[in-house]
Amino acid sequence: MENKYLERVANNPQLLKNLTYSELNVLAKEIRTKLVSTVAKTGGHLASNLGVVELTLALHKVFDSPKDQFVWDVGHQVYTHKLLTGRYDDFDSLRQNGGISGFPNPEESEHDTFAAGHSGTSISAAFGLSVAKKLKGDDSYTIAIIGDGSFTGGLVYEALNNAGRANSKLIVILNDNEMSISQPVGSFAKYLAAMRTNRHYYKAKGFFIDVLESLPGGTALHDKGSQIKKVAKDYLYQSNFFEDLGFEYMGPVDGHNILALTRALEAAKEFDSPVLLHIETVKGMGYEPAELNPAQFHGISRFNVVTGEPIAKVGVKNYSDTFGEYLCELAAENDKICAITAAMMLGTGLQNFAMRYPNRFFDVGIAEEFGATFAGGLAKGDMIPVFAVYSTFLQRAYDELVHDVAMQNNKVILGVDRAGFVGEDGRSHQGILDVAFLKSIPGTVIYSPSSYEELGIALHQAVDGDGHVVAVRYPRGYEGYLPKNYKALPEPVSIFGKKSSRVTIVTYGSLFSNAVKAQEKLKEYDIDVKIIKLNRVWPIDELAIKEAKKSDTILFFEEGIKAGGAGETFATMLMEGAYKGDFSHIAIEDTFVHHASIKELEEEFGLSSEKMVEEVLRRV
Amino acid sequence: MENKYLERVANNPQLLKNLTYSELNVLAKEIRTKLVSTVAKTGGHLASNLGVVELTLALHKVFDSPKDQFVWDVGHQVYTHKLLTGRYDDFDSLRQNGGISGFPNPEESEHDTFAAGHSGTSISAAFGLSVAKKLKGDDSYTIAIIGDGSFTGGLVYEALNNAGRANSKLIVILNDNEMSISQPVGSFAKYLAAMRTNRHYYKAKGFFIDVLESLPGGTALHDKGSQIKKVAKDYLYQSNFFEDLGFEYMGPVDGHNILALTRALEAAKEFDSPVLLHIETVKGMGYEPAELNPAQFHGISRFNVVTGEPIAKVGVKNYSDTFGEYLCELAAENDKICAITAAMMLGTGLQNFAMRYPNRFFDVGIAEEFGATFAGGLAKGDMIPVFAVYSTFLQRAYDELVHDVAMQNNKVILGVDRAGFVGEDGRSHQGILDVAFLKSIPGTVIYSPSSYEELGIALHQAVDGDGHVVAVRYPRGYEGYLPKNYKALPEPVSIFGKKSSRVTIVTYGSLFSNAVKAQEKLKEYDIDVKIIKLNRVWPIDELAIKEAKKSDTILFFEEGIKAGGAGETFATMLMEGAYKGDFSHIAIEDTFVHHASIKELEEEFGLSSEKMVEEVLRRV
Repeated sequence: MENKYLERVANNPQLLKNLTYSELNVLAKEIRTKLVSTVAKTGGHLASNLGVVELTLALHKVFDSPKDQFVWDVGHQVYTHKLLTGRYDDFDSLRQNGGISGFPNPEESEHDTFAAGHSGTSISAAFGLSVAKKLKGDDSYTIAIIGDGSFTGGLVYEALNNAGRANSKLIVILNDNEMSISQPVGSFAKYLAAMRTNRHYYKAKGFFIDVLESLPGGTALHDKGSQIKKVAKDYLYQSNFFEDLGFEYMGPVDGHNILALTRALEAAKEFDSPVLLHIETVKGMGYEPAELNPAQFHGISRFNVVTGEPIAKVGVKNYSDTFGEYLCELAAENDKICAITAAMMLGTGLQNFAMRYPNRFFDVGIAEEFGATFAGGLAKGDMIPVFAVYSTFLQRAYDELVHDVAMQNNKVILGVDRAGFVGEDGRSHQGILDVAFLKSIPGTVIYSPSSYEELGIALHQAVDGDGHVVAVRYPRGYEGYLPKNYKALPEPVSIFGKKSSRVTIVTYGSLFSNAVKAQEKLKEYDIDVKIIKLNRVWPIDELAIKEAKKSDTILFFEEGIKAGGAGETFATMLMEGAYKGDFSHIAIEDTFVHHASIKELEEEFGLSSEKMVEEVLRRV
Repeated sequence: MENKYLERVANNPQLLKNLTYSELNVLAKEIRTKLVSTVAKTGGHLASNLGVVELTLALHKVFDSPKDQFVWDVGHQVYTHKLLTGRYDDFDSLRQNGGISGFPNPEESEHDTFAAGHSGTSISAAFGLSVAKKLKGDDSYTIAIIGDGSFTGGLVYEALNNAGRANSKLIVILNDNEMSISQPVGSFAKYLAAMRTNRHYYKAKGFFIDVLESLPGGTALHDKGSQIKKVAKDYLYQSNFFEDLGFEYMGPVDGHNILALTRALEAAKEFDSPVLLHIETVKGMGYEPAELNPAQFHGISRFNVVTGEPIAKVGVKNYSDTFGEYLCELAAENDKICAITAAMMLGTGLQNFAMRYPNRFFDVGIAEEFGATFAGGLAKGDMIPVFAVYSTFLQRAYDELVHDVAMQNNKVILGVDRAGFVGEDGRSHQGILDVAFLKSIPGTVIYSPSSYEELGIALHQAVDGDGHVVAVRYPRGYEGYLPKNYKALPEPVSIFGKKSSRVTIVTYGSLFSNAVKAQEKLKEYDIDVKIIKLNRVWPIDELAIKEAKKSDTILFFEEGIKAGGAGETFATMLMEGAYKGDFSHIAIEDTFVHHASIKELEEEFGLSSEKMVEEVLRRV
């Protein structure tokens, strides 16, 4: 479908500067149609992108990218920006292997200033960029665009505290859609709500001065009047949250009115100090299913454009749902069980827990650090906190797990969701570091189930057993292939195949499915392979070492970073145990992992069943 | 010296409830004398402890510890609390091996609720404790005591955002001494200063209502009057920073007036919502040298009580000083070099840099996360940021190093200070995890100099070379023993001893000194040992593997956690390189490291030269 404006201005944002406001509004509609039709085919983030169409147009109208630099917080709302800066023609490749990323990526375009994927980094990064410009004598602007949900994270506050005092050309746009992913959390959200309903506040300031000036001098009111003036002065110079932190505050402005937005942005350019421009937008704007259900359309798989209904696998239980079910069962038996999420109630499958046990459910906002330390406090108070969190976001809480959980002998259970490859979300979201950073923490226990049943067993062991940081890690998506008559067992190690096999595959978690397929395939070549599956990845059970040492060749496959992975400890234990055979550790070597399907990534990193077969054949 | 009250009430804080305020003031003096005389002998934190003597007495007068629970932020201001709760008799063993810790430690006393050492955790932990109590129907209080310096950290904000909405029995005491360790940082500090000078603000509220009520109705002012009322109402219901976040605010109160403090604390107990009580104290109060120079008396080694002068090693250059000197040299040559510290300007030796290059020096407050992301922004803006940070505090920035530095291909240089054992500060401060967590990050380079000269070489290599996260890690304290005619070299690996030696010691950093001493000692037994020193710990150079493989026995000594340490990678590389000899990795196995001198810790963990000798003798 050819549009009236989109193809004309796409690939060069300078061209839209010449469009009238009514033309820009038509363009906005064209962009929305493109966004909905593309994401319906590719999957991706939709509601947030629909919310910032007008804002993105206004930004490109007022500023000159890439000289002026946009830093998009979290980064998943950058689709319109991509359509306008050279990615229109490739837009159908969104999130596909080799195609464009669903997040800003400086390697993809000079218009993508700073990569993101985790929340709350934009003001810090933009401030760094703006300071660099100031040191270089460059007077262009740096603009951070950040949602209200990100303001639940402490990094944003640290950035405001630092940036507020600098006179750099920094503009922060608070995109307030009364959302993080599902609902706003905490006092700050209430505060923003009060600001929105309190629009006369800033207008009132001017009026108030008039009133004060008109107060009769020399009357009985005189003394009280001057007192009022004093107080009023405090009131005028005193301020809102952002002004307290050194920013000029402007807003709130209608974030779907391009004219209002461009005027506000032009005004924001005039200040010498950093500016916070508060705009209001509607998540999912312009596409009814997304407006009605923005949480469902936050990150979505392929869907039917007309109905908004997802196309695949509805109603099929995934790992997150299963985790949520087990946790409800545990909470029914044990009233010490508490559940914590960092703004990922739906993503981590906790919606039923939240309904059934509201007093023991805590959505802390996008604040993984707080989540971990708060959990430490709950544990010290004799509760059993379970923090459900994506592997990649747990990276945020490393020190808190060290200092407020492990060092204190507090037991906190982690439901580490999206462990391993996550697929299309790409680099910032891959869960490939958790085993490495968790096992460095003294007293940690890590379980890595390969089936739903094992997830249940691991959660029970986590509740009943020892350890301080006790992680149960499971992949994005669904249970994989399991051999016939497969039996989930509570032992830390399971062994599959003849004990006398000359070749041993060691692995854990979802790669077990690939190992089983490889084992079956290799039987066709008359090669017996023994699989040692680490149900408990950490600490590694001595039995695994003992059994592995019986073979001549050991291949350790790990869907995680090699440096610090469980495979390295395995090698060390083998070597300290005087093993003299061959050993290889096949894992992710010193690189980030781009976006592609999980299947494609397994193939690329040598972790698919086919690659396992090849690896074995090469050695026997 | 026998005191009038201290010995009487020490070990049972209930007893001080019967003292009069004038008796408590005498007791405060006695405590100060005890603090000064003890720290003069043991070293430790002094200025902060002198600042909270009255507060601690007031807390124990008003609340019932351990039922009511105190959570001390950072934890180094807990000495008075320890004197009053069973640690008086052992107080001379402060920070000594086997003695009492300089930080709260629940394993030491039931009165120490939550351990600390890192800043900003108290409100999160205290909120967790208070929620646990609420779930259990326990109506006792939880009191977080936190300095203004900690408010530069985002975790505090995350906690306020969450705790403000809960009606738990949580009281937060903001101990405002206009300090973090040296000087306050950021907009929030300015805001607190404004609150302190603006004392009439809260008094004015009540007065303002009177004025409004007295405004003449039905006059010409009527309309404006009711507008004023409206605005005034906003003003009254509107609020300060803490009230915005849902806390009842009280203060500021004189933190050295026990009567005022107890009254305020009694009042704070009456609210159903969380309370923030703002008190003002003077760091170093009552001991003139510390009052005059609180930064110097923040953490101090042994000193002369009369003069306040330190006893040992003054003027001797340590690693931090050396780092600061080299960085100034680099900055003189290259105007892209920027220095960042998280409230540790003095500790990391950056005071001269700050004076000479104020535009390129950034003290970001106790905000390591921001420090890393801000550095990422500076790097993206073509600067060369150098973030000087203690190893233990760098744990805070793990995700930011992953997401905002490495994943972005930004080069950020880390000056990792206090890497390895730190001695008397103990568990929370040991720098034993940095190699493990840094090497898990793709694209990381880690240098570990064993001499000042090597520190300079490493910094130059960091500036000129590749890598994203580029860490130069060096120990607390001074250059260790070096062999005669020792030559610092830029190669990633240095080898000392006969290449044909049957035994190889592999190590890096300050342990090199012990290895050299062991090598010399072993010569007396006619045993040749080759030392492979990793100047660049990560990535491990293949030459090190090649040379190590020539010997029959390889011992890898590492002053860091074993799980994920460089030794594990070394073992994996040996094994993948088909090495068939013996290998041992001697490092810290799955435990936190208590307080003791570095020498004692080296002995305990098998890393002293004597232990190295024993280890070799056992194997040859």
